[in-house]
Amino acid sequence: MEDAPTHDTVKHSMQPEDTPELRKLYAGFKEQHIVPLWTQLGDLMPMHPASNAVPHVWKWADLMPLARASGDLVPVGRGGERRALGLANPGLGGNAYISPTLWAAIQYLGPKETAPEHRHSQNAFRFVVEGEGVWTVVNGDPVRMSRGDLLLTPGWNFHGHHNVSDHPMTWIDGLDIPFSRQNDVGFFEFGSETVTDYATPNFSQGERLWCHPGLRPLSGLRDTVSSPIGAYRWEFTDRALTEQLLLEDEGQPATVEQGHAAIRYVNPTTGGDVMPTIRCQFHRLRAGAASKTRRDVGSSVFQVFEGTGAVVINDMEHRLDVGDMFVVPSWVSWSLQAESQFDLFHFSDAPIMERLHFARTVVMDE
Amino acid sequence: MEDAPTHDTVKHSMQPEDTPELRKLYAGFKEQHIVPLWTQLGDLMPMHPASNAVPHVWKWADLMPLARASGDLVPVGRGGERRALGLANPGLGGNAYISPTLWAAIQYLGPKETAPEHRHSQNAFRFVVEGEGVWTVVNGDPVRMSRGDLLLTPGWNFHGHHNVSDHPMTWIDGLDIPFSRQNDVGFFEFGSETVTDYATPNFSQGERLWCHPGLRPLSGLRDTVSSPIGAYRWEFTDRALTEQLLLEDEGQPATVEQGHAAIRYVNPTTGGDVMPTIRCQFHRLRAGAASKTRRDVGSSVFQVFEGTGAVVINDMEHRLDVGDMFVVPSWVSWSLQAESQFDLFHFSDAPIMERLHFARTVVMDE
Amino acid sequence: MEDAPTHDTVKHSMQPEDTPELRKLYAGFKEQHIVPLWTQLGDLMPMHPASNAVPHVWKWADLMPLARASGDLVPVGRGGERRALGLANPGLGGNAYISPTLWAAIQYLGPKETAPEHRHSQNAFRFVVEGEGVWTVVNGDPVRMSRGDLLLTPGWNFHGHHNVSDHPMTWIDGLDIPFSRQNDVGFFEFGSETVTDYATPNFSQGERLWCHPGLRPLSGLRDTVSSPIGAYRWEFTDRALTEQLLLEDEGQPATVEQGHAAIRYVNPTTGGDVMPTIRCQFHRLRAGAASKTRRDVGSSVFQVFEGTGAVVINDMEHRLDVGDMFVVPSWVSWSLQAESQFDLFHFSDAPIMERLHFARTVVMDE
Amino acid sequence: MEDAPTHDTVKHSMQPEDTPELRKLYAGFKEQHIVPLWTQLGDLMPMHPASNAVPHVWKWADLMPLARASGDLVPVGRGGERRALGLANPGLGGNAYISPTLWAAIQYLGPKETAPEHRHSQNAFRFVVEGEGVWTVVNGDPVRMSRGDLLLTPGWNFHGHHNVSDHPMTWIDGLDIPFSRQNDVGFFEFGSETVTDYATPNFSQGERLWCHPGLRPLSGLRDTVSSPIGAYRWEFTDRALTEQLLLEDEGQPATVEQGHAAIRYVNPTTGGDVMPTIRCQFHRLRAGAASKTRRDVGSSVFQVFEGTGAVVINDMEHRLDVGDMFVVPSWVSWSLQAESQFDLFHFSDAPIMERLHFARTVVMDE
Repeated sequence: MEDAPTHDTVKHSMQPEDTPELRKLYAGFKEQHIVPLWTQLGDLMPMHPASNAVPHVWKWADLMPLARASGDLVPVGRGGERRALGLANPGLGGNAYISPTLWAAIQYLGPKETAPEHRHSQNAFRFVVEGEGVWTVVNGDPVRMSRGDLLLTPGWNFHGHHNVSDHPMTWIDGLDIPFSRQNDVGFFEFGSETVTDYATPNFSQGERLWCHPGLRPLSGLRDTVSSPIGAYRWEFTDRALTEQLLLEDEGQPATVEQGHAAIRYVNPTTGGDVMPTIRCQFHRLRAGAASKTRRDVGSSVFQVFEGTGAVVINDMEHRLDVGDMFVVPSWVSWSLQAESQFDLFHFSDAPIMERLHFARTVVMDE
Repeated sequence: MEDAPTHDTVKHSMQPEDTPELRKLYAGFKEQHIVPLWTQLGDLMPMHPASNAVPHVWKWADLMPLARASGDLVPVGRGGERRALGLANPGLGGNAYISPTLWAAIQYLGPKETAPEHRHSQNAFRFVVEGEGVWTVVNGDPVRMSRGDLLLTPGWNFHGHHNVSDHPMTWIDGLDIPFSRQNDVGFFEFGSETVTDYATPNFSQGERLWCHPGLRPLSGLRDTVSSPIGAYRWEFTDRALTEQLLLEDEGQPATVEQGHAAIRYVNPTTGGDVMPTIRCQFHRLRAGAASKTRRDVGSSVFQVFEGTGAVVINDMEHRLDVGDMFVVPSWVSWSLQAESQFDLFHFSDAPIMERLHFARTVVMDE
Repeated sequence: MEDAPTHDTVKHSMQPEDTPELRKLYAGFKEQHIVPLWTQLGDLMPMHPASNAVPHVWKWADLMPLARASGDLVPVGRGGERRALGLANPGLGGNAYISPTLWAAIQYLGPKETAPEHRHSQNAFRFVVEGEGVWTVVNGDPVRMSRGDLLLTPGWNFHGHHNVSDHPMTWIDGLDIPFSRQNDVGFFEFGSETVTDYATPNFSQGERLWCHPGLRPLSGLRDTVSSPIGAYRWEFTDRALTEQLLLEDEGQPATVEQGHAAIRYVNPTTGGDVMPTIRCQFHRLRAGAASKTRRDVGSSVFQVFEGTGAVVINDMEHRLDVGDMFVVPSWVSWSLQAESQFDLFHFSDAPIMERLHFARTVVMDE
Repeated sequence: MEDAPTHDTVKHSMQPEDTPELRKLYAGFKEQHIVPLWTQLGDLMPMHPASNAVPHVWKWADLMPLARASGDLVPVGRGGERRALGLANPGLGGNAYISPTLWAAIQYLGPKETAPEHRHSQNAFRFVVEGEGVWTVVNGDPVRMSRGDLLLTPGWNFHGHHNVSDHPMTWIDGLDIPFSRQNDVGFFEFGSETVTDYATPNFSQGERLWCHPGLRPLSGLRDTVSSPIGAYRWEFTDRALTEQLLLEDEGQPATVEQGHAAIRYVNPTTGGDVMPTIRCQFHRLRAGAASKTRRDVGSSVFQVFEGTGAVVINDMEHRLDVGDMFVVPSWVSWSLQAESQFDLFHFSDAPIMERLHFARTVVMDE
């Protein structure tokens, strides 16, 4: 795609002279539910994406006490459904939207608690930065949740969670709630008040059927809209990233850029994104490495999984520790810098942008 | 797809007790840019799409005087770019959005006027309910605009218009401006202050290359994101609809439903929609015919092109005359009823819904 | 794709020494239905495609008397099914195969004759170099056959022909019979002894529904494996080619190469080839123009429709008149040279090569 | 798809009367390289696929002594390229074709031997029924070959093999040589006289980059025509089959049919077949289980990997032991019967049939 316009000296500005006739015309517009383009063009059609959303960093050290206090004060059950703390982008007017398309939340489930089953059109995933002891039950298939795992609940699959341990557990949820709400696409249905299967197997049925590299069950030849894999285990992610860096050491073209290993979680029936609206990826930078500065159409959210480093957003550097989360709105520049080996989980609305042909990326030269 | 939930007796409602501790927690949320899910769930994730947008009908008889007055009072030129009156859905807070995804406007160009060239990521089309005399120049290719024609300017193509006649001309514009604005995907670039080619050929280059049914130029074997056809002429649309009704008379399965002929405008390189975000269709009902009542995820806009009849939206009947426009928000029921032979142009955001797998339709049995 | 190997000085040649033990081994091979690779490699896996098929030209002036004599001597009816003279490539051992994949034949139908209905997996088309008066009935839809028309009967559609005139008619048939026979994919079923509809409409139902450029009936939204258009009329083909040359005159990029207009007949539901195994195209060269010399993987058959010129195959020039047909086997070089304006119909097995990723083309520099 | 015609009482049979005029006509045909359809129809277009190929079983016990004797008598090196014994279908006239599309061979490499590098358009794989000690080097990436592994060398990748051990090794090769030869699509190029990398890593670069279930390297986002995985390890295949049977025991829908687990080897960039012309699968039947009898368009080859059982082809039962191979031609019925737990490797030309829309399958009811 083309680069963004780099100068916009000509402005959207021309306006008609203010006269009694014009005021009468504008009154007529109002009465007839008409708004003229010429009064709004610059805001409606900016020279490049100019999001109301702003970059923001949430510190894990600030979030966790609030999550724990919620665990003490707020019940979880039918009605409220989930004890989830939505990260609200400061630029989006108090809505619990981390970006115009994405929702990100901290979910907290106390010892022995159950979050009841429901399903919705919205696509959802969970990523576990720490802890274990919870099983999420997706369409009747119990899926263990452990540190470093990505768990999927694609649109219209029933799901509930239960904590079998005697300690609370916290994870992040990612959904396309803002997109669904803005574009009026969502359906919601309540399911069982409990989870439909309290078994705690080590591996879900979906994993046992689908997590064999390059092998497809003959009982699963029909392509699916979303991935049939319920859990992407940390063990595999870690090994994939480790191998990329080792291959790089051996002179093979395995990494995205020098010192930067990365994988995309995919739907094995198509090789494409795990869900139609959300891309999930994982990045690992070697100690001392930095990613190139880039801008993308569409918004991204990251969570630090391991190590320390920084992100530079719009030329401002933010230091990051384990658990910290940040959002990069559309067309805002960003780059990652690793102090130690630096692992980050990353999700975005890129599938929307690509499927509708709005995707553009600029990588800055150094 | 599944039907919508037909009863939602269980409500999103459970709330924690109001205590000093809870208030302190909520204050902490605010400070940390956190919004809890449990206070918002019902609004964020309704049982079925519950659009802020409302159904509305704009009468051509009301719009035209305002367009003419704008022609007298408002110049057209660099800055304002277009003399376009945006139809503002009464439910969308005063924005010039006819639905959460779509923009619809009346554009008015006076005798000998030129609307300067620009380009933008937003996909656009024009449909001509009456008149002639204007050429739109798309990437240097002059395209005649005449009654009944659909004219395309897909994203990032330069385009300007000029009126060679001594009378004004009016048409409707459709774009994905609201979608682009909400999701931060739009780029904009100014082009020539005039149009780059003032020729007035009867047929554009794109038509001459591509408008031969079932024939593809060997110079155009690469599929394109949007249709390479700049103008879909009324003559062809009319003939296609006429033939469908004749075939129906002969007992052939050519119509959508009894007495209801319809075509979709498509990209000849793929057979799919003309642009990635906007579907364009045309409906013809025989006098006395009615379409079945249906609900769709996604929003639609119609303009009456010929004949009289009515639309029933959410059980309310609206009588319609030539030029009248109306919007059907997501998941609102609608059906068309023809008094005379009844021709309507129709556009929607269906490609978005289908590509992201949110599309659902329910057709009611009678 | 890569170029072909241009030198093959190293030969497939190494053979073991002839000893009693080797002879015993070879006897064992024979007994066990084993053939060793090392005795056959050069023939099985040549350095580049080395077809048994040879280039050949059939002169219309030679073919027509045979067709007429067949009309006098050979009945048409159930059993033989068609009075078709298959063009047998001289290199393919007496089989009626014009190439390893394709069948081409002259079909001749006398006044008032009927060729009975049948269907088969093999994909078929007809192209009419002269005459009129026959209707082909495809799945009950009568399709007029006139000069310059391409008529389709994709696999497993019932079809029969009848001549309503008092003069005989001749046309060419193209099918994938050799491919189907070699690869054991064909089914065959007899249908009506007559045609199921003796009506003689000017336009078939398929045309009336589908031949409106860029317009798709809403009753036909499901993509089809083969084109739903039964007849591609000469009027449209001629106009498309005429426009390409006019656009070239105006400086637009409309032709394949200087003086060479060409169209591909396509399936309007996909923009792709009309049938899964056969590509159909039409070429027009200006008087004096020549196409660049090229080699393609896969075989092509041409028929001169209008004008005079020549084809150079493997550096040998063959002069061509109206109706003459020729075959270009895989990886044999060819170019067209126009004396007058020169129109040629062209079909090939290119969809097979492309879908299986064997396609390669080299265009020689001048 | 439709069922095959089940009765074909009407025969292709009608022939003209033998007269001097007819003989003269036929002489004219011969002179002009014409073959009439009516003399050949039944053979060219049978009522259903009627392959010249016949079902046949090759016993491993017969093959191995021949392979060993070849090792003693026939060198391996540039020219002959490979010590490969092609299984020649008894119905295909002495060609080393196991079916009209497929090649299957036993390849034998002695201690410390090297088979030199070359590349060709033909797609190839190897499957290892026993042994170890050989590395195949594919485009410079050394790939270990061990028991139960499937190794790929898709078209136009350089490859050679070398045996590092002091014992010989035997495996089977599968290619699309007959298809390529018949359709004239093949190119061949010699490479290094030795292998380009004599390293013996446990895992190839391709595996290290791609064999992490559901994870795609960001350096490999471009889809590839064939799988980027060089080796599909037995460990994964075995585990996938084991899990399917365990899930079946637990009441989950994981197997193809009762007691019959099966996987397809796939290209992780698309979820589709490993190569454009060849499908590879693996079947496991529980002791005592049987697969349903079926017919498919296209040909299949099987090798028993473990266990004993039988195949019933065209109602004739053939008992099978480890290493035995058999071919099922197009539209011939087959079913598997397990005595012990029964493991079979299976390859076929199904991608050709599916991509060209000739695929049909009938599963017989019991």
